[in-house]
Amino acid sequence: MPISDAKPIRNILFIMADQLRADYLSCYGHPHLQTPAMDALAARGVRFSRAYVQAPVCGPSRMSFYTGRYVASHGSSYNRVPLRVGEMTIGDHLRPLGLRTALVGKTHMTEDRDGMTRLGVDRQSVEGVFAAECGFEPYERDDGLWPDEVNPHDLAYNRWLRAQGYEGDNPWHANANAGRDAEGNLKSGWLMRNCAEPAAIAEEHSETAYMTMRAMEFIDEAGDQPWCLHLSYIKPHWPYIAPSPYHAMYGPQHVLPANRTEAERKSPHPVVGAFMQHEESVNFARDEVRETVIPAYMGLIRQVDDHLARLWEFLEQRGLFENTLIVVTSDHGDYLGDHWLGEKELFHEESVRIPMIVYDPSAAADATRGTVDDALVEAIDLAPTFVQAVGGTVPAHILEGRSLLARTRATGEGWRHACFSQCDYAFRGARLTLGRAPSESRAWMVRTDRWKYVDYDGYAPQLFDLMEDSAEQHDLGGSADHATIRDELRDELFRWLRDRRMRVTLSDTQIEARTDTHKHRGYLFGVW
Amino acid sequence: MPISDAKPIRNILFIMADQLRADYLSCYGHPHLQTPAMDALAARGVRFSRAYVQAPVCGPSRMSFYTGRYVASHGSSYNRVPLRVGEMTIGDHLRPLGLRTALVGKTHMTEDRDGMTRLGVDRQSVEGVFAAECGFEPYERDDGLWPDEVNPHDLAYNRWLRAQGYEGDNPWHANANAGRDAEGNLKSGWLMRNCAEPAAIAEEHSETAYMTMRAMEFIDEAGDQPWCLHLSYIKPHWPYIAPSPYHAMYGPQHVLPANRTEAERKSPHPVVGAFMQHEESVNFARDEVRETVIPAYMGLIRQVDDHLARLWEFLEQRGLFENTLIVVTSDHGDYLGDHWLGEKELFHEESVRIPMIVYDPSAAADATRGTVDDALVEAIDLAPTFVQAVGGTVPAHILEGRSLLARTRATGEGWRHACFSQCDYAFRGARLTLGRAPSESRAWMVRTDRWKYVDYDGYAPQLFDLMEDSAEQHDLGGSADHATIRDELRDELFRWLRDRRMRVTLSDTQIEARTDTHKHRGYLFGVW
Repeated sequence: MPISDAKPIRNILFIMADQLRADYLSCYGHPHLQTPAMDALAARGVRFSRAYVQAPVCGPSRMSFYTGRYVASHGSSYNRVPLRVGEMTIGDHLRPLGLRTALVGKTHMTEDRDGMTRLGVDRQSVEGVFAAECGFEPYERDDGLWPDEVNPHDLAYNRWLRAQGYEGDNPWHANANAGRDAEGNLKSGWLMRNCAEPAAIAEEHSETAYMTMRAMEFIDEAGDQPWCLHLSYIKPHWPYIAPSPYHAMYGPQHVLPANRTEAERKSPHPVVGAFMQHEESVNFARDEVRETVIPAYMGLIRQVDDHLARLWEFLEQRGLFENTLIVVTSDHGDYLGDHWLGEKELFHEESVRIPMIVYDPSAAADATRGTVDDALVEAIDLAPTFVQAVGGTVPAHILEGRSLLARTRATGEGWRHACFSQCDYAFRGARLTLGRAPSESRAWMVRTDRWKYVDYDGYAPQLFDLMEDSAEQHDLGGSADHATIRDELRDELFRWLRDRRMRVTLSDTQIEARTDTHKHRGYLFGVW
Repeated sequence: MPISDAKPIRNILFIMADQLRADYLSCYGHPHLQTPAMDALAARGVRFSRAYVQAPVCGPSRMSFYTGRYVASHGSSYNRVPLRVGEMTIGDHLRPLGLRTALVGKTHMTEDRDGMTRLGVDRQSVEGVFAAECGFEPYERDDGLWPDEVNPHDLAYNRWLRAQGYEGDNPWHANANAGRDAEGNLKSGWLMRNCAEPAAIAEEHSETAYMTMRAMEFIDEAGDQPWCLHLSYIKPHWPYIAPSPYHAMYGPQHVLPANRTEAERKSPHPVVGAFMQHEESVNFARDEVRETVIPAYMGLIRQVDDHLARLWEFLEQRGLFENTLIVVTSDHGDYLGDHWLGEKELFHEESVRIPMIVYDPSAAADATRGTVDDALVEAIDLAPTFVQAVGGTVPAHILEGRSLLARTRATGEGWRHACFSQCDYAFRGARLTLGRAPSESRAWMVRTDRWKYVDYDGYAPQLFDLMEDSAEQHDLGGSADHATIRDELRDELFRWLRDRRMRVTLSDTQIEARTDTHKHRGYLFGVW
């Protein structure tokens, strides 16, 4: 689709909040938690009500966002699985289009050191930095989770905190992610029983405030050069510890009832049952834990929203809403005790569904402003959206998603009828509980308009009818009445597996130009 | 399996002859063509009677040999589709084990220049050369097919020919691949009507002779350092033109009847039918063509065999049979008119089955010497065979084949029950005939003990019962009686697609060591 606006899109602001459940935004229906800044963006753009990550855990989900490819294609199936050298990322696609593509915050990228060494890539070279940072210029990289055991020596946020007067090597750990009780005692934010305490840090020095500041610094520094900024908040991801006043903004009265049934607990699917034995699941099964943690989680979200309000004002002052595509999303949700689970990783809506708000400044998107779109949307759709937004040609032999400009501009193009997500629980205790090999601990989700099908290595599938059972409390994986639909969805998965884009070095257009051309090059095979 | 021989395997000699049909070796049953050198190796090793390539065309087949991975994993689905930067190859696996890994002859590798540029890989650096040459030190690279239109300026074989007194820029083209008729006129070897003429070159200056010489030079030069040499003959691949006396060694009386029926011709599968319209198929349908070309093809094979005899003697003199694993194989077959087809690419046995002879010098392999093994073997099995042979640990998260030492040493390990191959005909006229998009012109083969199933994009599958119909003349793809077996084989394909090894940056062993270890690193999520 040609972009013919008088003011074409110059910049992309790609905002992610880690572990942010879709239904914890007021515009997605939370009754107690107000997120006016995110809601305001939704009012100016399109809010996608059915957006799904390609893996409901940080690392692989992000690698899908950043590569625009399914986990089955990029291969980085879990946290700390290096993204293999050579996988192209958003930065690789946008830089040739003239965009300075930078990061403020978290990516969860693990570099493929062996691969880089094998190719002689210098880690200090420009190309080496991009390869190691999944394509972003690390204007400010901070993956956030730095207990003392893994504290990087030179974390910029720690240096800044020390400049503000905080003491010690790791004030990130000792202050930003620790609580302080009424008597002034430090309490580890890693322990959920301390989540009601305020963080031992002033709000304006907290990570969310710092990252917002750094984003603004980047934008001002970038000046007239078009840019793509990935502002990637670590919060509301655990440690669930919020600075004052956000620590006390919500209480047990704001905690929604858990979405869980006794039947789910008593006869779970074997893999789900093994996840229920994880410590986070056992703890989140207790009301005391939910009533302590969820208010802190809500406070952290509200804090992010307040900083987004600051950011919107900053953008407005500079006229950047005129020419900047803005996305607010997350890398996965958080069970918070629903379905007797904690954390994420499996495929219930609480885990796999994300908020996805897209503000497209083009006049062509005026007709959809403030609308809700229930199309099936995937995290991998952002990379092609960005490429198209700034006038590039989407390399469909590499990028596996679809540009969302087809939705914001209501072009009437056909859309996908199924979306997909993957789980690799090789690294988790559940695998040991089940006694499975690392390479045989996988699951795949197929989600259509009505159904959600989950196919497991070595176990029966799960099936949910989201029309009749939107809470996903009734697993139809063994229902004799549903054998046909299960077969159909398994066929969807089969077709999807066939269609992974692996011929990444040559486009369909290049092939068209080379088809049946051997004679022109002097290769006269088969000629009499 | 530990290797406890007094004389462990030090070297690997990996010999490939391009387009060599399995049934054109005498040890595989050809009644007229004698291949005593290859037969002698089979007598000292194991001859695999059911070995299959992962794609029946040069480039992707070789990339599977060299990476040890299916086409679905490495992505180089056709000739001239660059192997994406970062894909590991035999050389990458063997060099750390101390082997100098070199090439004499053809690889059909196309380098991923865009990928190398993106990573800042210097094409002139050691690492850059390996990346561009799919892991081999290009001791002598010669892909052979160099008509004047694409003649590389500095082809070593051309320089050598000029030193022997041949004239012009491209004596490879003008002499080695041209014929000379009785009147002394040059005749293009690219035209099949000239295939009965002798090549315009002395036999000792032909490519096969030259490459054999270069292999011997490499081996002598390598000296005491362990090595892996890929000796990769271009012949008997077209241009089908043999030097004297090989051009006249066989005649029409030695040409076997074509394996084809009128029914195949009249109602072919749509994709097979489109291939039948290719020029090579139309021509090979004529007896005159077969009777002209096949004797030349046979002569070229006999020539390779005679040079292998020289090579065996050379190795014997140096005691290298004591410590060198030797393989003779091919990258695919040649229809030669069978099934009304020319060339290769589709999945009939004439195209997809290859000779595979493995000589394992270990005493542990004494029990299998001279035996025929009908296990289902794949081209990708060689990479792990080589790694294991020299004492390495097979990286099973990357290499998708199985070490054949389990067969040569009869370890009794369980073996695969199906093997797989792929076809991408996006580049061929057949795609235009059928009006298909480049990304939707694919086929997959599943071959089990009894059955061969071919699944096509957009068309009905094919099915052959190889027990009842070893000539593959009766397509059961539409047979109502065979719906169940077709479903089972489609399920095999589904399982295979799930199992592609994409998490190449982390092994199962590494995952085992990292499972459920977050607390040791200070990540106390889910703790109350």
